Amino acid sequence: MGFLVAALVVGVVAAAGADTRGRKGKGPVIPPGEQAAVDVVYADAAARLIGAAMTSDHAYTRLSELCDGIGHRISGSEALERAVDWAAKSMQADGVERVVRQPVMVPHWVRGRESATLVEPGPHPIAMLGLGRSVGTPPGGITADVLVVGSFDELKALPNASIRGKIVLWDVPFTNYGETVKYRGDGANRAAARGAVASLIRSVGPVSLRTPHTGNMRAYVDSIPKIPGAAISIEDATRMHRLVDRGQRVRVKLEMSAQMLPDAPSYNVIGELRGRERPDEIVVVGGHLDSWDVGSGAHDDGGGCVISMEVLRLMKQLGLRPRRTVRAVLWTNEENGLKGAEAYRDSAGASVEKHVAALETDGGVERPLGFGVEINRTGTDSVDVQSTARAVTQAKQIAKLLTGLGASQITDSGGGADIGPLMKRGVPGVAHRTVGEHYFDWHHTESDMLDKVDPIELRKNVAAVAVMVYVLADMPGRLGDPISSPPDPPPSSGPASH
Amino acid sequence: MGFLVAALVVGVVAAAGADTRGRKGKGPVIPPGEQAAVDVVYADAAARLIGAAMTSDHAYTRLSELCDGIGHRISGSEALERAVDWAAKSMQADGVERVVRQPVMVPHWVRGRESATLVEPGPHPIAMLGLGRSVGTPPGGITADVLVVGSFDELKALPNASIRGKIVLWDVPFTNYGETVKYRGDGANRAAARGAVASLIRSVGPVSLRTPHTGNMRAYVDSIPKIPGAAISIEDATRMHRLVDRGQRVRVKLEMSAQMLPDAPSYNVIGELRGRERPDEIVVVGGHLDSWDVGSGAHDDGGGCVISMEVLRLMKQLGLRPRRTVRAVLWTNEENGLKGAEAYRDSAGASVEKHVAALETDGGVERPLGFGVEINRTGTDSVDVQSTARAVTQAKQIAKLLTGLGASQITDSGGGADIGPLMKRGVPGVAHRTVGEHYFDWHHTESDMLDKVDPIELRKNVAAVAVMVYVLADMPGRLGDPISSPPDPPPSSGPASH
Repeated sequence: MGFLVAALVVGVVAAAGADTRGRKGKGPVIPPGEQAAVDVVYADAAARLIGAAMTSDHAYTRLSELCDGIGHRISGSEALERAVDWAAKSMQADGVERVVRQPVMVPHWVRGRESATLVEPGPHPIAMLGLGRSVGTPPGGITADVLVVGSFDELKALPNASIRGKIVLWDVPFTNYGETVKYRGDGANRAAARGAVASLIRSVGPVSLRTPHTGNMRAYVDSIPKIPGAAISIEDATRMHRLVDRGQRVRVKLEMSAQMLPDAPSYNVIGELRGRERPDEIVVVGGHLDSWDVGSGAHDDGGGCVISMEVLRLMKQLGLRPRRTVRAVLWTNEENGLKGAEAYRDSAGASVEKHVAALETDGGVERPLGFGVEINRTGTDSVDVQSTARAVTQAKQIAKLLTGLGASQITDSGGGADIGPLMKRGVPGVAHRTVGEHYFDWHHTESDMLDKVDPIELRKNVAAVAVMVYVLADMPGRLGDPISSPPDPPPSSGPASH
Repeated sequence: MGFLVAALVVGVVAAAGADTRGRKGKGPVIPPGEQAAVDVVYADAAARLIGAAMTSDHAYTRLSELCDGIGHRISGSEALERAVDWAAKSMQADGVERVVRQPVMVPHWVRGRESATLVEPGPHPIAMLGLGRSVGTPPGGITADVLVVGSFDELKALPNASIRGKIVLWDVPFTNYGETVKYRGDGANRAAARGAVASLIRSVGPVSLRTPHTGNMRAYVDSIPKIPGAAISIEDATRMHRLVDRGQRVRVKLEMSAQMLPDAPSYNVIGELRGRERPDEIVVVGGHLDSWDVGSGAHDDGGGCVISMEVLRLMKQLGLRPRRTVRAVLWTNEENGLKGAEAYRDSAGASVEKHVAALETDGGVERPLGFGVEINRTGTDSVDVQSTARAVTQAKQIAKLLTGLGASQITDSGGGADIGPLMKRGVPGVAHRTVGEHYFDWHHTESDMLDKVDPIELRKNVAAVAVMVYVLADMPGRLGDPISSPPDPPPSSGPASH
């Protein structure tokens, strides 16, 4: 019930002795003539959300249903269909409003059977995963000598004759994801342009227990032959590199039956808690429902889906209905197409301007740190520095409520794959941040399973996101708006929770 | 040449001003009337061994030849034959003396094709490795409901009806190897005795990236049905446990074509540096040449083999020929039979009494810590406390030479699988110790490959073992003998290196 009093007080001059926590005799006193700060006004609501999240195993059970029960769920798979059903039914069971399945046609890449073998010296099996979007090999596979290179520049410096007919192995040690993933994206096209017959990358991750990491390649280019691309484990990449360094001939046989099928039907799953006062204004909170076709998509991004569902469920359970609508969006096809994100943006149409914030959780559910906040100039990817600075100031105020969760860090870089299309239309982006200590050990691998999720950290993440979303949806001003803007009038009287 | 002067001085009353490091004008002066301590006497030899080991990439190159070139090498495999040839030829190339291949018949277990599938809920592939010695499944596999238990006691407490016809999953979290490996050893027999049709263990290791750990089961017992045993990844074990906890039926299909073939011929590979003075007295240094049939057997135990070979090579190169014979023994069949260790002991016959120490490296080649020293009562596994205490005192003196390597810790528990049969006959055992920080992350898995070996730590391990072995082979007294025993006479004159 705290929200009602909070809403009355926020942004207006506080009366001496007013109890901003909505309970008589408790909470700080706002001196006469001062405005109540957001973190004071929402202290009670935050305490209730945090308390509820920290004492519930509901999120973890949901994540077990998704990850243990359904498992991985790549775009086009029957498992993703089951995940869509599960998500919609779960939201309905939670009493979430306007649960819809938003149709989206998604790319349908299938891995098929695949293997790589070190045939000389050998035979030794190679731990590999084909890359998303890759073509397969011809029947019988491709057997060729391996050329090991450490960078794009290194390949560039080589004569065509030493590349033609070879399998190029990009043995690029992991530095950070953004830097190293370039070889996953462009390795095959760059190698093919110089006459190579296949492209292998050292997996994009910091550690390995013979653990290949898959992920998407960039689109093939019509002017360049389409050659298959695969990730191999760090162990296998460095083994071949050492063999070559010792002057040995290294030959690999690659067999992949990967193919791109016609686009398949899929769905974004969307549910709401309608705003009590400005229901046409929307705060989006979401993650992506699809995953790669390995592991169980626990950190990437089952956690983000479950958190988004929990935000609505907890508000509903606690009777905390904010001023604006909170909409959970479980996007489809983040991993290999972003068709879900595009479809959501397109469906929003002009109402995209009513999106006051879009929060994405897609960095795993390790210990929460806080949020990144960023507002772009409409129609661009470039940051609107002034409104971002204002948003950071506001978010820092909200994040004081998350100090006890250790989640009060606010930075000025937000964004995320699924909220990208909205942000380009000017919607303030909020990125949920965790320590990410092991995220890249697991993501896109067979190991991204529920044992990697600490149930307590999951609760903390639910709590942190719930508080941030609730305040964003309830506070009078919009994230990034000039802070000196006139305060909103108090909400109309009457029961706010309905 | 330092050894010659060192040998002259050790154990005898030092003349005033004698240069115990064998080089005029250097080294500490032993006061008149005192005996030179081992660490003083061998300072020069140790410095030369350490210096040579730390400036050479020879050990790492050798390990690459074995692990990258030949790869894993289970008993009975053609790869182990190649490893035997490689080891013998490498020792010959090093100028090692009396290189022999000692014939041993070894168990010949083959994994064959294998898979496990979570069929309900599912299908989901399970990351698994059959356990050594396991029988296969009948054609078509075994499909059954899974019973999850956490301990032997938990199974014991259940009625037969709840076990019969089930696949028992031992989901026992890793505490330490000795404690947890019991389930690998006895799980199948215990489950079979209660009517189970197969036994799965949670892999015996602290971490996992969907990483099954194989290893040997105990022998089947004639009175109990022989059921297949396999290890599954921590991810898969905990997934099934969670599903069962949520009340779901969990069914698994296990298919294994593992079988035990007739014993196969193999070899211990042995080479020596003959003692310059008491060649019939022997210090053994060794590791095992065989590995499991996954990964490359880098830490387990390619490192131990290469270190043992390097000890001889460095002494030979430096002209450091100790008083006694140093014998490198690369045992076969440590992993699933110990037939190599038994054959070596048997071949030694009465000469086992001339073995003054046996040093084994089989704990990986992470950062070296030192050595464990242990002497058993002849004919038993029980410690001879007095002689062990004396040996520890001596070894601590020697280990002062290893302070700079961080490898000067000496404990009173030694031993090892391959030196066990010798120790039971009274031979002092010396176990090479490393930090073992990640050893059980890797051993018996696909990930035990050369990238896990830090080349610098490998050098330090070579250095530490070389110094320990050299001093054990050269010092006048034997490890564990009463320290007050009369000093040996100085060696006869003449060139000691031949």
